[in-house]
Amino acid sequence: MSVYLFAKELIRNSGAFIRNRMEESFQVESKSNPNDLVTTVDLETEQYIRAKIKEIYPEHNIVGEEYEADIVDSKSGYLWIIDPIDGTLNFVHQRENFAISIGIYKDGEPYAGLILDVMKDKLVSAEVGKGAFVNDEKLETVKTSHLSDSLVGISHKWLIREDIKAPLIEIVKECRSPRSLGSAALEYAQLIEGRIEAAMFFRLSPWDFSGGKIIGNEVGIITTDFLGRQNNWLEQTSVLATNAVLQKEITDIIKKDDGFILAHDTFHNIHKSDL
Amino acid sequence: MSVYLFAKELIRNSGAFIRNRMEESFQVESKSNPNDLVTTVDLETEQYIRAKIKEIYPEHNIVGEEYEADIVDSKSGYLWIIDPIDGTLNFVHQRENFAISIGIYKDGEPYAGLILDVMKDKLVSAEVGKGAFVNDEKLETVKTSHLSDSLVGISHKWLIREDIKAPLIEIVKECRSPRSLGSAALEYAQLIEGRIEAAMFFRLSPWDFSGGKIIGNEVGIITTDFLGRQNNWLEQTSVLATNAVLQKEITDIIKKDDGFILAHDTFHNIHKSDL
Repeated sequence: MSVYLFAKELIRNSGAFIRNRMEESFQVESKSNPNDLVTTVDLETEQYIRAKIKEIYPEHNIVGEEYEADIVDSKSGYLWIIDPIDGTLNFVHQRENFAISIGIYKDGEPYAGLILDVMKDKLVSAEVGKGAFVNDEKLETVKTSHLSDSLVGISHKWLIREDIKAPLIEIVKECRSPRSLGSAALEYAQLIEGRIEAAMFFRLSPWDFSGGKIIGNEVGIITTDFLGRQNNWLEQTSVLATNAVLQKEITDIIKKDDGFILAHDTFHNIHKSDL
Repeated sequence: MSVYLFAKELIRNSGAFIRNRMEESFQVESKSNPNDLVTTVDLETEQYIRAKIKEIYPEHNIVGEEYEADIVDSKSGYLWIIDPIDGTLNFVHQRENFAISIGIYKDGEPYAGLILDVMKDKLVSAEVGKGAFVNDEKLETVKTSHLSDSLVGISHKWLIREDIKAPLIEIVKECRSPRSLGSAALEYAQLIEGRIEAAMFFRLSPWDFSGGKIIGNEVGIITTDFLGRQNNWLEQTSVLATNAVLQKEITDIIKKDDGFILAHDTFHNIHKSDL
């Protein structure tokens, strides 16, 4: 069995693990704080995933949201980047619209990505070079689009932050309609399936977008930071994910705003000498 | 068969009508403008619903989004207020996350409400006084909540409109997390199921909220305008739908902003002498 097929089986089983755990917990602990519940299930699920990987592949490295990372040599062997529950507020409030996200690198290169909508048991995944799939159905390359014809996923919270809001407000004004689902991984899944045309996140951690970035690349979704630069996939970063035409339109709006660029690069601790 | 049972059967059949029509159309007309498609399906679906009602109940009055309203005597007999596709941009872009919404009044009083998530075939409905249901499962009264613990549905577009944005920005800042799904009827369904805690719409038409208002009332969701006033359910209005505790917190923020109140009442053509 390839590592990719193993990962597909693992993410489905991890989804079942969460669904079972929720059923027990929402019964037993209905009076307790739901924030404790999500913390517990988050930790248990990452533990479950880590144990299953290490059982079969003890030499693989793992970076997750909830536990200290393995000391990573990112250039050799397999590296798993996992988020056991992406969309924790949806988990607590909605009991749906959250995901498990997995990105896998091999010898420093993207190898595979997987995003499972846990409550729908719907898997979007790709092995690099072999196309992206929703469950077992192959997905087509996404259509290019212009801002005026595009649904754009973006959190309201960035629109009201003084030092960065100007170009984001322009994008929201010019786009066909903005959306906010509350899970970066599921917004990536929507992009990959052609249900929204762009998604923008001012700050994500590697486990939030590694899976989506790898899968998206198979269907023409380009991932960069807000200024169109390639992200370091092991650091926090801004993330713009969209088709090639819209990527240029959005970064053109952003790059003409020097105040935004300064605030962005200061926030993300990016120095000109690094670029 | 009661009018409510007839309406439940009708909305399910209308959902099937849309799903079939989409399957044909996305095949046949994939090259044409998707905006034409939604217009066509919208019109056909309202026609379908109108014909089915008139066949059984020729004396019932109907107000819909797509056709001229019957001349309505709102005080006697049955009045159906229908939106054949709520969330048309989701219909076009996502091929999911849109709804049929129906509100029914009898002799000027709320009688029943129905919201069908068309692609999930999931029905939220209520006959007044008999509780709200999702499919055949009875829903509990929603919990009260504070802003800091609440997911709030609100469109980004109102946050960037100069004359009204100030209190809305405060609400977005103070809430636990904002969401935007792109369908007023489905945000109502989320409220009714306890998946979000408030939904705010600066401008809705009667067919956008009549169903949700009637169903919500069965589980403790109060519908008013942004200032906490009762809406005229046959006019365009702002809509705030939430539990009693959060309703007070949100309207307290809004009512302290005289600039907002002036802009709101001017926009909606509300004069002090009307109140």
